[in-house]
Amino acid sequence: MRFESLSQIAALANTLPARDAAARAAALARQNSLTKPPGSLGRLEDLALFMAEWRGTDRPVITKAQALVFAGNHGICAQGVNPYPQAVTAQMVANFEHGGAAINQLCRANGADLSVVALDLDNPTADFTTGPAMTEAETLDAMNRGAAAVDSGADVLILGEMGIGNSTIAAALTSALFDATPADWVGPGTGSDAEGIRRKIVAIEKGLALHGGQNAMATLAALGGREQAAICGAVLAARAARIPVILDGFICTAAAATLHAADPRLLDHCVVGHASAEPGHRRLLAAIDKKAIVEFDMRLGEGSGAALALGILRAALECHNGMATFGEAGVSEA
Amino acid sequence: MRFESLSQIAALANTLPARDAAARAAALARQNSLTKPPGSLGRLEDLALFMAEWRGTDRPVITKAQALVFAGNHGICAQGVNPYPQAVTAQMVANFEHGGAAINQLCRANGADLSVVALDLDNPTADFTTGPAMTEAETLDAMNRGAAAVDSGADVLILGEMGIGNSTIAAALTSALFDATPADWVGPGTGSDAEGIRRKIVAIEKGLALHGGQNAMATLAALGGREQAAICGAVLAARAARIPVILDGFICTAAAATLHAADPRLLDHCVVGHASAEPGHRRLLAAIDKKAIVEFDMRLGEGSGAALALGILRAALECHNGMATFGEAGVSEA
Repeated sequence: MRFESLSQIAALANTLPARDAAARAAALARQNSLTKPPGSLGRLEDLALFMAEWRGTDRPVITKAQALVFAGNHGICAQGVNPYPQAVTAQMVANFEHGGAAINQLCRANGADLSVVALDLDNPTADFTTGPAMTEAETLDAMNRGAAAVDSGADVLILGEMGIGNSTIAAALTSALFDATPADWVGPGTGSDAEGIRRKIVAIEKGLALHGGQNAMATLAALGGREQAAICGAVLAARAARIPVILDGFICTAAAATLHAADPRLLDHCVVGHASAEPGHRRLLAAIDKKAIVEFDMRLGEGSGAALALGILRAALECHNGMATFGEAGVSEA
Repeated sequence: MRFESLSQIAALANTLPARDAAARAAALARQNSLTKPPGSLGRLEDLALFMAEWRGTDRPVITKAQALVFAGNHGICAQGVNPYPQAVTAQMVANFEHGGAAINQLCRANGADLSVVALDLDNPTADFTTGPAMTEAETLDAMNRGAAAVDSGADVLILGEMGIGNSTIAAALTSALFDATPADWVGPGTGSDAEGIRRKIVAIEKGLALHGGQNAMATLAALGGREQAAICGAVLAARAARIPVILDGFICTAAAATLHAADPRLLDHCVVGHASAEPGHRRLLAAIDKKAIVEFDMRLGEGSGAALALGILRAALECHNGMATFGEAGVSEA
């Protein structure tokens, strides 16, 4: 999958694969035959049906789970929006590569193959308080790198991000896409105090004054960053291959939400792994009508909440595929 | 561990092991040195500290996870409180033994060794609308069988139950222990309709009229069942061996809540795996001041929600033990 123009993204909703209703119906029939009161596995049943409708089979399995973490740097850090030095982005990429970060442990625990894609860390995007963060060409390049990183042989894709300053990027995007009140979307991120939060709000207000009122994909270029664009590219490439996606917290979901703003159908194959403690995330989940899998007060990013949710998705499929039916087990029905 | 008298249970809170504050403090120091903003793994950090304080080490691991499912039958079924025939209890025990139930898949997915303990299924407890469900001797026998089933070499214990009619038993216990309004505690269970729910409430009101106002352990005998008593015995035996416990949904938690009513400290080493869709469970979690790990609209029992939560507990320890510190990774701090 290759993106040539931002103006063509929204229309992909008309041509990319849709849900397989027959596979879903067959999976539902199986669920209702298993040795449990109907519906008693709750959202585990929903997850099994979700996997069925996107993988196009009544007995979906996860043989290969891919996790992709995209990293980028942001000119907005010049506005003092983050207490950590920008060098931490590259340091954390090295930590990912050496296996020392939370996402490494969570991928190992839940059986995902992790790849980290560092996007021009030495060349941060522009400061959006003075001009667009990215050109269209830069945005498309990052989207294409995101799409190219997707393994078409995966059964599920976990997405995450790393980028000092990018909780400000996320709040700028959601303010522009859904509701131009930055204070409703801004939170502490990696650990900003009240003064840091005020600086984030001021920066976003300047960004909205310069770049507000544009369409979704133009907003991604003007206020986003490379890892946000790469997430969008990966979400679309996964859809083309009928690979369900687990989004992570506020920053990852905000990136994908640009696609939702372009056409809500573009996120039909995505679930959200966890509801972040970052306050904007719950508001965002309501805006895109998604319910998180786990709520565990996490606020780390890196794909950590999505990788945690992978374990629950695996459990859902183990039940779906491994349980006996009432007939097989000789158990009486109600 | 052997129980000789119900009147001696409450005092065990004074002699059983308590939290290891030094191990917890050392684990917290480690958490704060790992490559993440402090606290950003949220409740995963809390779970690591919980394991540390009960296992008595700053680096707790799960080498062996035991899951125990206790099954019993109940005379209260004579009151028409459940749409399934009572024979289903033994049929589901056979299903557990053959590997066909949800709990088998969830234990396999999350690495727990499952044992099923069927407690005199051919000899249901008495109908509590006409007399005490169990004698003290029967209650102690079931508690002792529960305690004997605990593997003292386990690092964590998952508890679950199976017993047609036992959502009525659970609501009877919680009504008697916390708030004598059965309608607040009764729900559909395996699938009762409005008329079935009304029969449950009437049965519990009769039970409370006969057996209300007794102390916690006498209430367990009068209104409980063998699998409830076995869960209490297993909780106490685990405490004696400093094994943390993951409780399951409404029925399992209601059983353990008799210990909470005897002395709240008796559940200090227990977490609750999930918040059940059975409406009484949230009220019960508030009553015993526990917050569930997962909320996934499940209402199956069998230990299914507890086994699902085991995967999250494992993830918490993988992060705690496997992550690099800021110093090890050469990552700058804020």
